Amino acid sequence: SRSIDLAVVPGDGIGKEVVAQGLKVLAAVLPQDVKLETREYDLGAQRWHRTGETLPDAELESLKGHDAILLGAIGDPSVPSGVLERGLLLKLRFAFDHYVNLRPSKLFPNTATPLAGRPDIDFVVVREGTEGPYTGNGGSLRTGTEHEVATEVSLNTAYGVERVVRDAYARAAARPRKKLTLVHKNNVLVYAGHMWKNIFDRVGQEYPEVTTDYLHVDAATIFFVTQPERFDVIVTDNLFGDILTDLAAAVTGGIGLAASGNINPTGAFPSMFEPVHGSAPDIAGAGKADPTATVLSVALLLRHLGHEAEAVRIEDAVAADLAERTAETVRTTDEIGDALAVRVAS
Amino acid sequence: SRSIDLAVVPGDGIGKEVVAQGLKVLAAVLPQDVKLETREYDLGAQRWHRTGETLPDAELESLKGHDAILLGAIGDPSVPSGVLERGLLLKLRFAFDHYVNLRPSKLFPNTATPLAGRPDIDFVVVREGTEGPYTGNGGSLRTGTEHEVATEVSLNTAYGVERVVRDAYARAAARPRKKLTLVHKNNVLVYAGHMWKNIFDRVGQEYPEVTTDYLHVDAATIFFVTQPERFDVIVTDNLFGDILTDLAAAVTGGIGLAASGNINPTGAFPSMFEPVHGSAPDIAGAGKADPTATVLSVALLLRHLGHEAEAVRIEDAVAADLAERTAETVRTTDEIGDALAVRVAS
Ligand SMILES: CC(C)[C@H](C(=O)O)[C@@H](O)C(=O)O
Ligand SMILES: CC(C)[C@H](C(=O)O)[C@@H](O)C(=O)O
Repeated sequence: SRSIDLAVVPGDGIGKEVVAQGLKVLAAVLPQDVKLETREYDLGAQRWHRTGETLPDAELESLKGHDAILLGAIGDPSVPSGVLERGLLLKLRFAFDHYVNLRPSKLFPNTATPLAGRPDIDFVVVREGTEGPYTGNGGSLRTGTEHEVATEVSLNTAYGVERVVRDAYARAAARPRKKLTLVHKNNVLVYAGHMWKNIFDRVGQEYPEVTTDYLHVDAATIFFVTQPERFDVIVTDNLFGDILTDLAAAVTGGIGLAASGNINPTGAFPSMFEPVHGSAPDIAGAGKADPTATVLSVALLLRHLGHEAEAVRIEDAVAADLAERTAETVRTTDEIGDALAVRVAS
Repeated sequence: SRSIDLAVVPGDGIGKEVVAQGLKVLAAVLPQDVKLETREYDLGAQRWHRTGETLPDAELESLKGHDAILLGAIGDPSVPSGVLERGLLLKLRFAFDHYVNLRPSKLFPNTATPLAGRPDIDFVVVREGTEGPYTGNGGSLRTGTEHEVATEVSLNTAYGVERVVRDAYARAAARPRKKLTLVHKNNVLVYAGHMWKNIFDRVGQEYPEVTTDYLHVDAATIFFVTQPERFDVIVTDNLFGDILTDLAAAVTGGIGLAASGNINPTGAFPSMFEPVHGSAPDIAGAGKADPTATVLSVALLLRHLGHEAEAVRIEDAVAADLAERTAETVRTTDEIGDALAVRVAS
């Protein structure tokens, strides 16, 4: 489409800083005839302190009208753990049915990895985004006493699992290596695990060209550090995906480079793009945050909206920028954003 | 005590081979006046195929009478996933109330790690062993249909959490660095997560000398590869502990070296010691399995039974053996066992 109506949720901590750079690069990469409109939403810790609100219905409704959402980071130590995560970030993912939480992991040349031998890493995790242990289903009885019992219920539906598994197969089929790995823990979580595995096997019959593999989540973490090149596309549950993608970010140059998309593939609701890193309150406002993860999230956003050429331009710019970084390179958040904006524009 | 009455469950795959070496080293390290009695239990895949049984009541009862259990590995691809895990391994952990699942992680000199820079790794994970998502609480409705709903319930009690947290504080207080890190995901799993955190904070008041830290599980995986030296003792939930300890094994020389103890600190039931690795059916019978993890599990067993000097002798022998390995060293399971037996005896 020749216009993009974007909702912007800078959020907390370094969220504001990195989102500013993402928007800078977005403006620089778009052709003149694509009209960019943005509306900023004041949501996050400050809003909660001021009004007690995390995501009022009116704003949820208004967000629904945009083509996509760019989000910085949510969370602040001054707010009890869970309030903003559940009341804002996860509320958006659930309300807008972001069932594909897409997290590519690529080790760019010249970037630091804690792994010896610099393995060739280029995989994408398709994390389920609307079910599993993230549904908020659970409770606490006799809270705070020595007789407390607390539960967390992982909810999984065939409907929810099948749609994300299908998405993952389609992505695997479209990649050169055509390999899909299911990660779960079906030797212990037998109910959910067997359902995942059965659906994974059944849908796989429609994709004979895709090679499949299954790993327990504990074994998967081993391969992430000893043999990450074995992965192409991974499909997994919401919580396992959360854990694995942080580890994936760590081995591919760090959380400063990890992009993500919370995608509703049907288009019924706007998809949301955000760096995997958090609000990093310790460095907020210091101009030290690397905006690259946000800029790469903007590339995912453009790809989702059909601007493939612009997405590739951003990814190439990031690769070129990373290739020129040295251990001595110290740039501010703003300077990195400027450098990337210059590259994508030229 | 001057006698050890040991139950031995070799189990499946490489379990038999590594357990044989563990027993060899155990026999070699014990002073003449300590009487060692062992009784082998035929449990695992073969038994299940033959009789359909995983762990009959009579054998559970009989196992109860031993001082400790040495277990090799459980699981085989010929058995549906979950049958042996739930029906045998986890049944033992639950029946014998093994609430402390102890998993030390140490990067010995001269062993391979996938991490560049060979960080100084020496921590121990105290994994809760009798609660969380491992209780088997859950179910499946309309199984196999497009309307299937599958649940997994994580059950957590103040009683269960407090006792393992206390154990972890005591272990941290006894170590030179005196640092304890709680790992959970209390920004999403708010019911269980807040209970864990509240109990962790409350019990911590009794241990002012212990420095404490809290990490979300996703962030913890990052630090496992970027800054593992920051950890001393970690206490965590059953599932997070499962995931983190495989990752810990991977960064400290691999799963061939990772030992574990399933401990009932009250002594009401026998504790069980096992390598963290699985049955590795692909190399079973080939004499290729490294028995070191089992031998180190025997050290934990001896320590648990009060034979501290012998435990240290084994650990020193392993360190010395590892220090002499080179990339060219290729030894069979049996040869490694022999070498360790010679070292502990001398
Ligand atoms: C902040 C938190 C709720 C979130 C999650 O657990 O999904 C984050 O870790 C992520 O991966 O996006
Ligand atoms: C085999 C399996 C049931 C077991 C677990 O999940 O606890 C194993 O992975 C372990 O870590 O001991």
